[in-house]
This record gives sequence, structure tokens and C-alpha cells, in this order.
Amino acid sequence: MNNQYMSPNSIASLKGIVVPTVTPLINTDTLDVNGLHLLVEHVINGGISGIFLLGTTGEFASLSYNLRYEVVERACKQIAGRVRVMVGITDTSFSESIRLANYAADMGADALVAAPPYYYAASQQELAEYYEKLASQVTLPLFLYNMPVHTKVVIEAATVKRIADNRNVAGLKDSSGNLVYFRSVQQAMLDRSGFLMFMGPEEITAEAVLMGASGGVNGGANMFPDLYVQMYHAAVAGDLARVKVLQQCIMLISSKIYSVGRFGSSYLKGLKTALSVLGICDDFVAEPFNRFHQEEREKIARALADIQALLHQSNVTTHHNNIAT
Amino acid sequence: MNNQYMSPNSIASLKGIVVPTVTPLINTDTLDVNGLHLLVEHVINGGISGIFLLGTTGEFASLSYNLRYEVVERACKQIAGRVRVMVGITDTSFSESIRLANYAADMGADALVAAPPYYYAASQQELAEYYEKLASQVTLPLFLYNMPVHTKVVIEAATVKRIADNRNVAGLKDSSGNLVYFRSVQQAMLDRSGFLMFMGPEEITAEAVLMGASGGVNGGANMFPDLYVQMYHAAVAGDLARVKVLQQCIMLISSKIYSVGRFGSSYLKGLKTALSVLGICDDFVAEPFNRFHQEEREKIARALADIQALLHQSNVTTHHNNIAT
Amino acid sequence: MNNQYMSPNSIASLKGIVVPTVTPLINTDTLDVNGLHLLVEHVINGGISGIFLLGTTGEFASLSYNLRYEVVERACKQIAGRVRVMVGITDTSFSESIRLANYAADMGADALVAAPPYYYAASQQELAEYYEKLASQVTLPLFLYNMPVHTKVVIEAATVKRIADNRNVAGLKDSSGNLVYFRSVQQAMLDRSGFLMFMGPEEITAEAVLMGASGGVNGGANMFPDLYVQMYHAAVAGDLARVKVLQQCIMLISSKIYSVGRFGSSYLKGLKTALSVLGICDDFVAEPFNRFHQEEREKIARALADIQALLHQSNVTTHHNNIAT
Amino acid sequence: MNNQYMSPNSIASLKGIVVPTVTPLINTDTLDVNGLHLLVEHVINGGISGIFLLGTTGEFASLSYNLRYEVVERACKQIAGRVRVMVGITDTSFSESIRLANYAADMGADALVAAPPYYYAASQQELAEYYEKLASQVTLPLFLYNMPVHTKVVIEAATVKRIADNRNVAGLKDSSGNLVYFRSVQQAMLDRSGFLMFMGPEEITAEAVLMGASGGVNGGANMFPDLYVQMYHAAVAGDLARVKVLQQCIMLISSKIYSVGRFGSSYLKGLKTALSVLGICDDFVAEPFNRFHQEEREKIARALADIQALLHQSNVTTHHNNIAT
Repeated sequence: MNNQYMSPNSIASLKGIVVPTVTPLINTDTLDVNGLHLLVEHVINGGISGIFLLGTTGEFASLSYNLRYEVVERACKQIAGRVRVMVGITDTSFSESIRLANYAADMGADALVAAPPYYYAASQQELAEYYEKLASQVTLPLFLYNMPVHTKVVIEAATVKRIADNRNVAGLKDSSGNLVYFRSVQQAMLDRSGFLMFMGPEEITAEAVLMGASGGVNGGANMFPDLYVQMYHAAVAGDLARVKVLQQCIMLISSKIYSVGRFGSSYLKGLKTALSVLGICDDFVAEPFNRFHQEEREKIARALADIQALLHQSNVTTHHNNIAT
Repeated sequence: MNNQYMSPNSIASLKGIVVPTVTPLINTDTLDVNGLHLLVEHVINGGISGIFLLGTTGEFASLSYNLRYEVVERACKQIAGRVRVMVGITDTSFSESIRLANYAADMGADALVAAPPYYYAASQQELAEYYEKLASQVTLPLFLYNMPVHTKVVIEAATVKRIADNRNVAGLKDSSGNLVYFRSVQQAMLDRSGFLMFMGPEEITAEAVLMGASGGVNGGANMFPDLYVQMYHAAVAGDLARVKVLQQCIMLISSKIYSVGRFGSSYLKGLKTALSVLGICDDFVAEPFNRFHQEEREKIARALADIQALLHQSNVTTHHNNIAT
Repeated sequence: MNNQYMSPNSIASLKGIVVPTVTPLINTDTLDVNGLHLLVEHVINGGISGIFLLGTTGEFASLSYNLRYEVVERACKQIAGRVRVMVGITDTSFSESIRLANYAADMGADALVAAPPYYYAASQQELAEYYEKLASQVTLPLFLYNMPVHTKVVIEAATVKRIADNRNVAGLKDSSGNLVYFRSVQQAMLDRSGFLMFMGPEEITAEAVLMGASGGVNGGANMFPDLYVQMYHAAVAGDLARVKVLQQCIMLISSKIYSVGRFGSSYLKGLKTALSVLGICDDFVAEPFNRFHQEEREKIARALADIQALLHQSNVTTHHNNIAT
Repeated sequence: MNNQYMSPNSIASLKGIVVPTVTPLINTDTLDVNGLHLLVEHVINGGISGIFLLGTTGEFASLSYNLRYEVVERACKQIAGRVRVMVGITDTSFSESIRLANYAADMGADALVAAPPYYYAASQQELAEYYEKLASQVTLPLFLYNMPVHTKVVIEAATVKRIADNRNVAGLKDSSGNLVYFRSVQQAMLDRSGFLMFMGPEEITAEAVLMGASGGVNGGANMFPDLYVQMYHAAVAGDLARVKVLQQCIMLISSKIYSVGRFGSSYLKGLKTALSVLGICDDFVAEPFNRFHQEEREKIARALADIQALLHQSNVTTHHNNIAT
């Protein structure tokens, strides 16, 4: 029997903060094994509800297949059912998606996440057929992943509704940043109460949760999991004053850590550099990107000091005793 | 002295719901004068704080210049200071923007709104210089108008910050739907407390207001001004339960009125058809679009019945005694 | 009787090089009257077949309406039937397009050119209906103008075919740069032998003419009309060796004059600066752009020297005796 | 010694028609081995100069890695040096690109082709660094592959020039359809005479070759290799009359075979269906697409009859004795 870490709780109860973990690397082909270990413990200690392996933040597309499988194996074994595990199976090859989905199930993951195939852009009808076929061939619950900036395709609300007729489809993760889209999917799914809606961008997760979303899949939780968890709880409790205080911390992270440098890759580079400065893992970024130079690293370090000061001042509880900051 | 209707209150105090009024038309070149009159009274009776003439919803770009001036003249005279008036001066010609801005000031408007020139796409630097020049040559306070789907250009947060150094710049109206962008501008403008932030899409105005926005510029307020005003007040009061009830009405409007038909023009066609069904004004839509056929009109009529039932059931106060519904 | 300069030849015989003339300006609101006069004589002396007023190169969208009418009046009077005159009536307002079309007819222009309305993006069906209505309400022959980078909309081959059923539609000017599109329209119009196909980008006009296009609407002909005319004749004659020599001059212009500076506006700025260096007209560029600074102007001047040397070496006949170069 | 089929001629002499072969499939995971065999012989008999395995037409991104390797192995062994073999190594994972590049070298391929990584969009600087690293780690000559519709990124002319300083970079295949871009790269590479320029879209290969391109990488050559080869020779010979006759056949193929159905996938579906009707291979199309239904298949069959009639009438020599048409 393979599913040794299978969660006793169904994925349907998932809510809160899911961390799209970075994939710590020493070089293009070598996992930073110790970094991954530290990172997983760090975010679990921070109170997060789930870990999303091999997402966009996890550089899934830049990793060799061997590395992807190694990430799933190591992380699932270490997590061991303590939090939910979602595995990204997004791929341009249907077969490779299925193969990785089967492996994730064998390793005890709880759910799968798939963005549309991202080389050829499919029409909405083709997309619906694609997801229906995918959902019917995997054993774990499947989350749709709307990520148009990378995939060129929006999974339109009507398409989500059609796909969700398949019982294996658990929910949607939306990283478009377009809250009108998010609302339109919520509206389309009004009569499917169990359909889970997760917000990608951390800058707008509070609003999404205030209005009924299940939670956030927030990259910043790699660094400061407690902050995002506390924001989630404040939002669920309807404590607007507290939400605003925490949101201010989150916006400082967004504006200071993700916007250094000139390119679209500044989010990934900034996040990995910050994790390196925090002593959690290496800052290597896979091709086609590169790690930051010393100048940008120093900017990130100064920003982290400002952020930690604001966290302290905002009474954000942290568990950072195990990290060299 | 021309500014006969000049508001006693400065625009800096503007908050709440601003209605981007449709421009009622009998045909391409003829204003539906009676319709405009009814519409203005309808929305003022609904409690809105301001009227935005010649916006995207007002089909500004499709109107002849004579018609644009007629709209400003008639509406300003009728409004007569009862609510704030914002006039859209968006144009590809700088001279025409200035000319209309001067006319708006003469007619007693309170503020101007300008999206980027929309034929040639300007770089961020060119855009900043453009707005600085525009702000320095107009007399009324100026709102920036971010509307990338039509203008091809985002006014990036750093550009907003640079432009806002000009004292004549009062705020931003964002119609991108991208709440991450909206948040990034709020973050950039943290140290400019008087800078007003208005949300365009009504589907996400509640969230924006909950988190500190000044209000919404919501097309649906042409039909049901009371609903949007009540949503605004609930959000300002932090009454999440009430916000959710009202939000449900707003989402029903969005999904039933704005999504009939196959094209991007369905918002405008749906809104004008609904106003016609409600007895407020003609449903003529200027080129390159057309009014709906009878089949779609009947769909809209049925949707309005559903919406009004939900409004009633949700205890949304309305003032609709003067309209034939 | 108004059409005093009405061409004796029908537009159906138009072929060769049409110059999309720049609009010489002294400032935002003032035509460089002398510059326009010099420019018109310069290009006619260069042997071009037609002048396209108020095109993208003519900054139509940036000009006040008064200025647009002044350009048409002055240029038509000066040209006086010596070459064909096409007037751009592209506008977001249908009424303004018609008004300018009527004026152009009164002034004796030979044809009209209209790109899709460029604020709201129309669907293909709406676009077809728009052009059918436009063609039926103007008296002069109408050219469709495909310019997706500015209008956000491609006039698809099937739509061109549908619109061209209207007898008033004379042809297409394509500025997409996408030769596959151009070929697809030619294929769709195979059974309409009189339909004129003009290529916008000068870098690929030779190829288009070699394969059957009617000619080019080439911005560079503002500077060196003879060059483009000679390229056209070489292509019509099938003289590939000569075409390649002339093409090399054209590519030098493209790479040296249109690519100075960092922004998308470099084409317009470079062209106007070159015309100023050549002593033809002022280099003022209307908002949202600006003229080049001295540094870029010197680059342009040096490039012009290189280009003129190559023209001489390539035995390109020129008529530049009246210009201070 | 592995490179048993290594071409005696260097890739620098490559010119003419390269076929981007489809990958014949029986189902998602099973190669149509017999179809691939027939296809390879068919195109070699048609006189083509090279075969491009695992390109966009070859559905590389939709295939499992096992299948990609099988295609390379089988095709290289069968081709056995009779024509040049180019292998697509485009991948989002740098490691997987290198691994496939090494395998292709082992199997005796002559060159590699790589489009930009297509999940994360790289900036021009990142792209240059990526290609420099890639070129320095592979042993076979490398072609850049500009395919912005799928990769979201243009390899700008200045970037091509920078990358081409690496001696391992042999040329560019451009599938943008934008001939202005193609010309701008030719201009930038004027001083690198050995740099090969191949045109992707068959609709505009004649023009490209007339003006100096090395040849075409044309999907239609899967069906009618002789036609494209004869077009290439006519263009090289400057026989414009013959080019126009052959171009007409090519445009008929484009308009009748690639435009059936409503989606962007119609090219791939039409091509595979035609190959199936011609008796060459199965018409299975990998996810996210599907093969055509019977109705569309019949349209394709009728179109093929028209095309073959036109080919006959146009005196296009064919070798089709071995195929059941």
C-alpha cells in the first residue's frame, strides 16, 4: 500500500494559507536538500495549512524531471501528513502530467494542481476537454490553476463551471490578480458550495478571504508564514482593523522584496535572495534567470530589516528562533 | 464669472459612489435629452456622490465633439452643484483635451478625468511628461484614469507617484480589474494621504472600500444607484455581513446584465438596454456597436425582474417611484 | 461646384508609392505652413503617385480637429490634382469620420482611408457592420487600414472580403508587418481583381510588389521619395538585382533613422528630425511625444550623411536641388 | 564512436526546404512507427534538404520525453545522412534541453533548434545570457527559433546579433510571420555572412528567398515536398513568373487545409488530417487538441483534390507513386 501519508481529512476541508514553496537549488541540476528541509520545517512551524510543491514559485518548469520527482519524494516524506500537500502537475505533455500525478499519489500527496498546457494555447472548448480528461485519469483531487501571464490562456468562468462537474475537481487557484475574474468564478460556482477558491497574489488575499475565499497560496509565506496565517485568521474573523495592520506588512514585503531589479523575474529572485539572507536556503535561480548580484542582495537585506521591524511593531508573532536572522 | 455651479466643497472630500453616466442617444448624433434628464435625477435621488460624464461607460470616444460639449453643458446645468461632477477629457489630441477641460470648468464641473492618449502608446516616461503638462494647463483637479484594456498602457505605480507631485492631481480611477495594481498604487501613495483612489469595476468595489479606497465609479449605479450607495456605506462601516448580501445583488447584475451576447460590447449594450427597460432612456449605442435585438432585450428584462426581486428580498431601499418598472 | 481638383483618373488605377506625409508643426496647435508646402513639393518632385494625409505618420490622432481640416485644405489646394490624395478619416466617432470625409471630398481628395475605431475594440462582425455603414455614407472610395498595433484589432481576411462587397471599398492598406496576413487577404480577394493592396512598412514593400501588390505607403518617402519610387519600378520590372541594391538603402534608413532612442515613438521622432535636418520642415512632435534632444539629432544627421553616400553609390537619382542638405 | 551518421557537409551549407515533420501518433503515448517511416521517405523523395524533428509542427511540447527520444532515434537512423537533421531542443528546463541535445548529437543529428523557454518570459538580457550558456554547452550547431505566438517573447535583432557572436550559433528560424522583423535581423547580421536565415511560414517563404534567405521550414512540405522545393528553386533562380504560379498552389493549401475549424489548432489538425487522407500517417493529435471529426475530414479530402488538380495544372512534378491518393 503506497499512500502511506494519506491525509485522514479530505481535501474538501482545506482552508487557510498554502505555501507555494520555492525549490531550493545549489545549481541547475542539484537540489539544496538541507535548504528544502529547513524551508519545510519553517513554514509548518509558521502554522500554514498546506504546501504547494512545483508551482510557479517552485520554478517547476525550469527543473529537470528527475529534480521534480526528487522534490516530491523528499518533501512528502518530510511533511508526513502534518499539513496538506498539493503537487503541481502542470505540463505541456499530458503523459508527463499523468506520470507525475501518479507519483504524487504514491508519495502521499493530497491534491494536484494544473495550469493549462502552456505552449500551444487551447480554446475554451479544448481546455474544458483537456481538464475533463485529466481529472478522469488522476486519482487525487485536482485544482485548476489560472495563471494567464504565463499560460496565455484564461480558464473562463463558464469553463471552470463545466470542468467542475467532474467530481475530482476540488477547486481553483487564481493567480491572475484580476479580482473581477475571481468574483465571476465565485458567482458561477454559487451552487457548488464545496468548490474551493484560493487566491494567488498575497497583496489581495485578505480581500478575497473577507469575501469568502478559502485562503491564499502566497509566496511570501516562504519567508514569513506566521504573518500570512495571522492575516488569514483576522480576515476570517472579520477583524478589519487587524487585517489592515497585517496587510501593511504584506505590502511592504511586496514593494521591497519583489520589485528589486528591472525584469519580470524580480519576484522570484527577490524571494530566493530573501530566503538566503534569512538563512533558510540557497538563492540559486534556474535558467533562464540568474540569482541577484551583491548590490541587489544588500537591498534585500536592508528591506528585510525594515520588514522585521514593522512585523515586531505590528505584534506579528513569529517563530523565527531556528533561523539565522 | 463663469463657474456658476462651483462646488463649495473641495474635491478632496469626495468619497462614495460616482456614477459614470451613460450618454443617452436617440441616434449617432442626437442626444436623448429627456433620457439624460431622467437619468441625472434618478442617480441623484439614489444618493450618489458624483457624476462622471464622458467616461468609457458614457461612450465619450464614440461621440462627436458637439455632442460631448452638449452633454457637459446640459448635465452641469441640471446637476447645479447637488453632487460633484467629473468630466472625462481623455483624448488623443492634447489640444482637444485642454479645450474640453476649459469648457468643463466654465460649466462648473468639479474635476477632470483623463486616461492616457489611446492611439499611440506612450512609454512611462512620456506618459509622466504628458500628464505633468496636462495637469499644469488645466484649472480643475485632475484624476488619472487607468484603463489598459482600451488604452494599451498601464499607468504604473511609480509613474502615478511621479505625476502626483503636481498639486493639481487629485487621484486615480482604476478600471483595470487588477487589484494587485490598485494595491501597489495605494502603497506607492502611502505618504500622500489626500490622494483619492476610486475603483472602477463594481464587482470589486466593496473590497477596495473595505481596505481604504475612497469609493467606486460603478456603471451599475446608472440602474440601481441606491444599491451601490448602500454597499459603500456598509463597507465603510465594516459591516461585512451586509456587504456580502449587497455584493450578491451586484454580482447578479454583473452576471445577468453585462454578459448577454457574445462580444466585449455586451457591458455597454446590456446596461443601455436595462436603462431602456427601466424607462430611463433610449438604448441606442453608438458605432462601432449596435443596440441589442428583441431577443436579448427580453433576456435583460427577465434578468431585471430577478434582480429587483433579490433587491427587495435583500432589503435594499430604492427610490424607484418615478420610473416605469 | 466643390470638387474642383477631382482627379480625372479613377482611384482604381492607383499604383506605386504613396507618401504618408508627416504633419509639420511649429507647436501643438500650429501648422508649419511653409514646411508642409516644401514637403508636398519635395515628394511630388520625387515622383510619388499619391499623398496620404492624416495617417499614423501624419499624427492624425494627436492633432486638434481644426488642424486636421487645415492640413486637408492646404494640401489639397497645393497638390491640385498632380498626384492622388488620400485622406485619413480614422476616428473613434463615426460622425467625425463622416464630417471629415465630406470635407475631404469638397476639397477634391481622391480617396479616404479608415482604420478601425481604436478605443473600444470591435468584434469582426461589428467591424464589418461599421465599415459597411461607413462606406455607404461617404462619397469617395474608401481604403481599409489594418493597423493592429494601434487599434488592437486585425481586420481579418474574411472580414475584408465581406466589406469589399460594398462597391465603395477600393482596397486595403496593411501596416501590420505580418506578410502572412497580407497574403491571406490577397488570397481571399483573388476573385476581386480591382481590389488594391498597399503595403505600409517600407522594409517589406519590395517583396509585396514583387508578388503583386499595388504599391507602398512608405514613411521614408517623406525624406527620399525617389528611392522608394525607383524601388517600386524595379520590383514591378522584376529586376531583382536592382531591388536588392535599393532595398539595402531602405534598410539603412530603417535601422539608422527609425531606431534612435528607446521608445516606440522613435520612428516618428526620427523621421521628423531627419526632415528637419534635411531643411524640409520643423521637427516638433505632438503630445504624448516630444522632439529629440540635440544628441539624438546629431545621430540622425550623421546617419543621413551615411544614407546619402549609399544612395549616391547606389546610383539612386535624386532631385534634391531645392533642399538645404 | 557514436556520430555514425554525421553529415560530411557542414551545416553552414544548408539551404532550401527543411520539413518540420509532424510526429505521427497512434495515441498520446504511442508513435505511429510506420507513419513516421513513410513520412520520412516521402519528404526525402520530394527533394527536401533537411528534416526538423520536434518542432512546433512536430508537437514537441505535447510529447512525453520517452516519445521525444524515440522520434530522434528512429528518424536519425532512417535518414542516415541522406538529408540534414535538425532536432528541436526547446524546453523550459535547461537541463532537459542539454540532455536532448546530447542525445541528438549521439544519434548523428546535424543541428539543434531552440526557441526561448516558454513558461517564464525572459527579458532580452536574460535571453541573451540563456542562449550564450546553451550554445556553449552543446556540441552541435544551434539555430535560434523565434516563435513569439507560443513563447510570448521576440528574440530582438540586437539580441540575435549578440548571441551570434558565439561561434556555435548557426542561424535563425523565424516563425513570427512578421517580415519586418525578419528584415531587421538580416540587416543586423549583414556583417556575418554565414548566418543562416530560414523562414517558417510557407506563405511568405518565396519572398524571403527572393531577397536572400537560406530557405524555408515549411509545414506544407510534409504533404507536398516537391512543391516547396520547386518554389525554392524558382525563387533562387529569380524566376518570378514561376514563383507566382507555385505560390498560388501554396496559398491554396494554406487557405483550404489550415483554416478548417474554429480554433488556433486548425493548422495542426488540418495538416495531420491531410497526411492521413494521403495515406502517409495517422491523424491523431496530442492533448490539448483532438483530431478532426468526419465532417472536417471530408472538407480536407475535397480540398486535397482541388490542390492536386491545381498542382497538376501548374506542372508541379510530384513523386507520389508510393502513396495511396
